Amino acid sequence: MNQDISPRDLRHKIRSGEFTTNTSGYSRGFVQGNLCILPADYANEFLQFCQANPKPCPLIGMASNPGEYHISKLGEDLDIRSDIPSYRVFENGVLQREVSDISDIWREDLVSFVLGCSFSFEEALIDDGLEIRNVTEGVNVPMYRTDMDCNSAGRFSSKMVVSMRPMIPSDAIRAIQICTRFPAVHGAPVHFGDPATIGIRDINNPDFGDAVTIRDNEVPVFWACGVTPQVAVEQARPPLCITHSPGCMLVSDLPNSRLAVM
Amino acid sequence: MNQDISPRDLRHKIRSGEFTTNTSGYSRGFVQGNLCILPADYANEFLQFCQANPKPCPLIGMASNPGEYHISKLGEDLDIRSDIPSYRVFENGVLQREVSDISDIWREDLVSFVLGCSFSFEEALIDDGLEIRNVTEGVNVPMYRTDMDCNSAGRFSSKMVVSMRPMIPSDAIRAIQICTRFPAVHGAPVHFGDPATIGIRDINNPDFGDAVTIRDNEVPVFWACGVTPQVAVEQARPPLCITHSPGCMLVSDLPNSRLAVM
Repeated sequence: MNQDISPRDLRHKIRSGEFTTNTSGYSRGFVQGNLCILPADYANEFLQFCQANPKPCPLIGMASNPGEYHISKLGEDLDIRSDIPSYRVFENGVLQREVSDISDIWREDLVSFVLGCSFSFEEALIDDGLEIRNVTEGVNVPMYRTDMDCNSAGRFSSKMVVSMRPMIPSDAIRAIQICTRFPAVHGAPVHFGDPATIGIRDINNPDFGDAVTIRDNEVPVFWACGVTPQVAVEQARPPLCITHSPGCMLVSDLPNSRLAVM
Repeated sequence: MNQDISPRDLRHKIRSGEFTTNTSGYSRGFVQGNLCILPADYANEFLQFCQANPKPCPLIGMASNPGEYHISKLGEDLDIRSDIPSYRVFENGVLQREVSDISDIWREDLVSFVLGCSFSFEEALIDDGLEIRNVTEGVNVPMYRTDMDCNSAGRFSSKMVVSMRPMIPSDAIRAIQICTRFPAVHGAPVHFGDPATIGIRDINNPDFGDAVTIRDNEVPVFWACGVTPQVAVEQARPPLCITHSPGCMLVSDLPNSRLAVM
């Protein structure tokens, strides 16, 4: 399929079951988001958790009311129950199954949250001429649990998870400048250099994703990562939680440039 | 004298000979600038050199015509011949003498340039809660010759000189964000980390200024420095060049915040 497909057309192909895989690289230039659906009983606390931790949990859209499956801000015709290629269903914090549609298990008390993801800032960095190692090497970005505490909210708490991209210092400075413009997709890095400073023991052994090459003249640069709220949800053990499957994102009608604050 | 004196009052005291020292810390909140006065024969090439190297040579004002000693953009009543506490007079690139007034040697072919200086961004960083080591330790910022070539223009060429401030990585990220807003005072850092990458052999032995403490958890952060154009002028050996004496700056009426591009 042509990767330049419009977000709306891509969502329709996902909805009809024609597109079932990773959305990375499709509908270039448009925001892709992480999905998290929770029962209303947990929704306000999760919203507070996002509010208190905007770098790992940058909220770019949410349903106005429980039971609502449209988020028109992100796509006029968007149906959150069917427009994602693959969903993960968790019960009491434990993954139960992966499904391609959640219409049959939809409930009137479910609240949908969409969080910004690193695809948007990686695109901005690549467009500026920077190399993103995980893209070059065709692997998932390496991610690590840190010893940095997020701000807790109700039943939600977590250490921050970070993603890492190695860069030479002058590229890292440029990346900090560019990412600062995009607080809705994790914003500026939270750390660079010595991994031990933030509690990472082995940079070559990530907790999630894949290791990438770090050259002698490069420093690891660390961004707050959208896996953080997943860890918080797992620890809160809500009776039901539905997320996207890794890499199978919600593709929105929002141009990436629209997330730039300046 | 009260350090909160207005720039205009301070200039008047300098003009009358009542104030004769370092301007650091005076008229806080207002832009202080580096002065460089050259014969018209050299002025266009120097202007091109500044244009080609905006990070080390950020031009914030210049006289519209040769012989003009007012730069109203920087201060309505400003007289460039008398409003700086101490001037250095160079002939053929060699320092001849320091004087407190240049009215008697003023010529109709002299062109005045004013370049932004690090005082402005240091103030912005301190106001944000960051520590600036050279300020804390009460010494001049350490400066180093690097192996990075500036872009040449006519008779002007130079390796870039950088200033260094040690910071923990998260503070360095914040400093990069803040300084990016201020391209007129050297802008974002040009490097951090390993000094050897930019040709600095001994971080504890600066070429200009004083060494400062670098703690174990800190990295050196390097900014393009206003000493760079001085080196370029020394190498070009113009028959006459007049600059401010180190630390004895032109104090302008421009609020530092006015230099922020966003």
